[in-house]
Amino acid sequence: MTAPAAADPRLQRLSLNQRTCANWSLREAIDGCTRAGLDSIGVWREPVTEVGLDTARRWIEDAGLRVSSVCRGGFLTGPEGADRRAAIDSNRAAIEETAVLHADTLVLVPGGLPDGDRDLPAARGRFLDGMAEIVPHAQEHGVLLAIEPMHPIFAADRGVISTLAQALDLAEQFPAETVGVVVDTFHLWWEPGVQAQIARAAGRIASYQISDWITPLPPDALLSRGMMGEGHIDFATFTQWVAEAGYTGDIEVEIFNADVWATPGDEVVATIIERYLELVQPWSVPTRA
Amino acid sequence: MTAPAAADPRLQRLSLNQRTCANWSLREAIDGCTRAGLDSIGVWREPVTEVGLDTARRWIEDAGLRVSSVCRGGFLTGPEGADRRAAIDSNRAAIEETAVLHADTLVLVPGGLPDGDRDLPAARGRFLDGMAEIVPHAQEHGVLLAIEPMHPIFAADRGVISTLAQALDLAEQFPAETVGVVVDTFHLWWEPGVQAQIARAAGRIASYQISDWITPLPPDALLSRGMMGEGHIDFATFTQWVAEAGYTGDIEVEIFNADVWATPGDEVVATIIERYLELVQPWSVPTRA
Repeated sequence: MTAPAAADPRLQRLSLNQRTCANWSLREAIDGCTRAGLDSIGVWREPVTEVGLDTARRWIEDAGLRVSSVCRGGFLTGPEGADRRAAIDSNRAAIEETAVLHADTLVLVPGGLPDGDRDLPAARGRFLDGMAEIVPHAQEHGVLLAIEPMHPIFAADRGVISTLAQALDLAEQFPAETVGVVVDTFHLWWEPGVQAQIARAAGRIASYQISDWITPLPPDALLSRGMMGEGHIDFATFTQWVAEAGYTGDIEVEIFNADVWATPGDEVVATIIERYLELVQPWSVPTRA
Repeated sequence: MTAPAAADPRLQRLSLNQRTCANWSLREAIDGCTRAGLDSIGVWREPVTEVGLDTARRWIEDAGLRVSSVCRGGFLTGPEGADRRAAIDSNRAAIEETAVLHADTLVLVPGGLPDGDRDLPAARGRFLDGMAEIVPHAQEHGVLLAIEPMHPIFAADRGVISTLAQALDLAEQFPAETVGVVVDTFHLWWEPGVQAQIARAAGRIASYQISDWITPLPPDALLSRGMMGEGHIDFATFTQWVAEAGYTGDIEVEIFNADVWATPGDEVVATIIERYLELVQPWSVPTRA
């Protein structure tokens, strides 16, 4: 193991979502962040549960890392019944875990259409109802919930909330200290009028996540995200919009991609740092006079 | 060859886009429509050019078919230069061909980002500028241009206009008798507020195209459309919205899918007719009292 990198102040807000290095265990991801001089990590519930919540918290604290986000709650689009009750309970547990980890936010993936159900407006309505059920628990625990609008490629099977505008319509029905939104370049780069929606999101941006939209789209839609700079997204402009909305939190790299997963983690992190410093970081603070 | 089917009046508005049976030549597609008792066909420019425009027109007329749409013009997002001039010229030629074929409309696929270009708003602006250049030619020839908003999965490489709302923002800058929109279930089913946008599109719906959104998404995004009934789209509701907007034109089935293409054309058409009568046709006229 090499010595920790000398801390580069330009990396202060860069966070590694652990699923970007899917072959790393939580322990390895923590060590990888430390080696690379990162201050922040985004964690998933399953690997945290695997080692135990208290152990995970202690490891992360001992490494001096922040938790930029916990992935994930949500999946609240199902009809009333045992499965929906289980989903609500799971969200309550996720809220408690997020509080223990002192994480900035709990990401909510809305969920898709139930099997054989074709009523998208109704599924969207049930997600809102589910939010209303879990918000009081989040308030009690001081946890910020982040609705993740997802690229319409996932509208059927994963995330029925398809635009930042739509996510804000929902989030604005709750207090800003409890419900915000995820602004993710991969999901939102194509949205007509997204600049205005990012401005509207001021005070509601709970997480800024980055990855690129690449073509040809990889065969598995779930693994179609690219490394920043390999695709079509204008990170400078998008990041500037987010900065102008007053966002000063962590910038989390979340890439699901078979090629990235096949690359040694340290190499992936080195590339992330290089691309972040070139394409994102210079625009991460407002530049307006 | 079997005798033509007895004309079923419920099939009057059903049109086969010839690319749905990609292995059929234009001649075979015409004959396939006739055998199945359809009155209408959507054609592509390349197979028409292959046999010659006048021959194609004569074949279609002799078979007693209407041309519901010509695919396709557009691809107007490139920067000024020889390629853009060639695209404008190609659109002018497509307009003339559409007039010769007495087709209802010429479908415009907007085009994607130029190579290495990441400025999506600018590409959208150039599409609008290109529209302005070809509209007078369409007016002279009495041709209706139909802007096709495309699923955001194609925003980078094929169609920068991503929602019906955005397509209408553009179309409304031109006279309704010259510029309309394509309402395609595959492209638009996920759009938040699409019901209101379809209502807004009254008088501008130049083409109603149907295919399903299936999961898991097939590996090749371009071939990811499904047969109606195999996926997640609520055709009854969507078709009712289109009917309530006053649309009485043809309903064109356009499916790009490797499995469909591997199936004999007559079988595909039979399935289309079955699904159309079950899922679409009953809702294709307004039902409001």
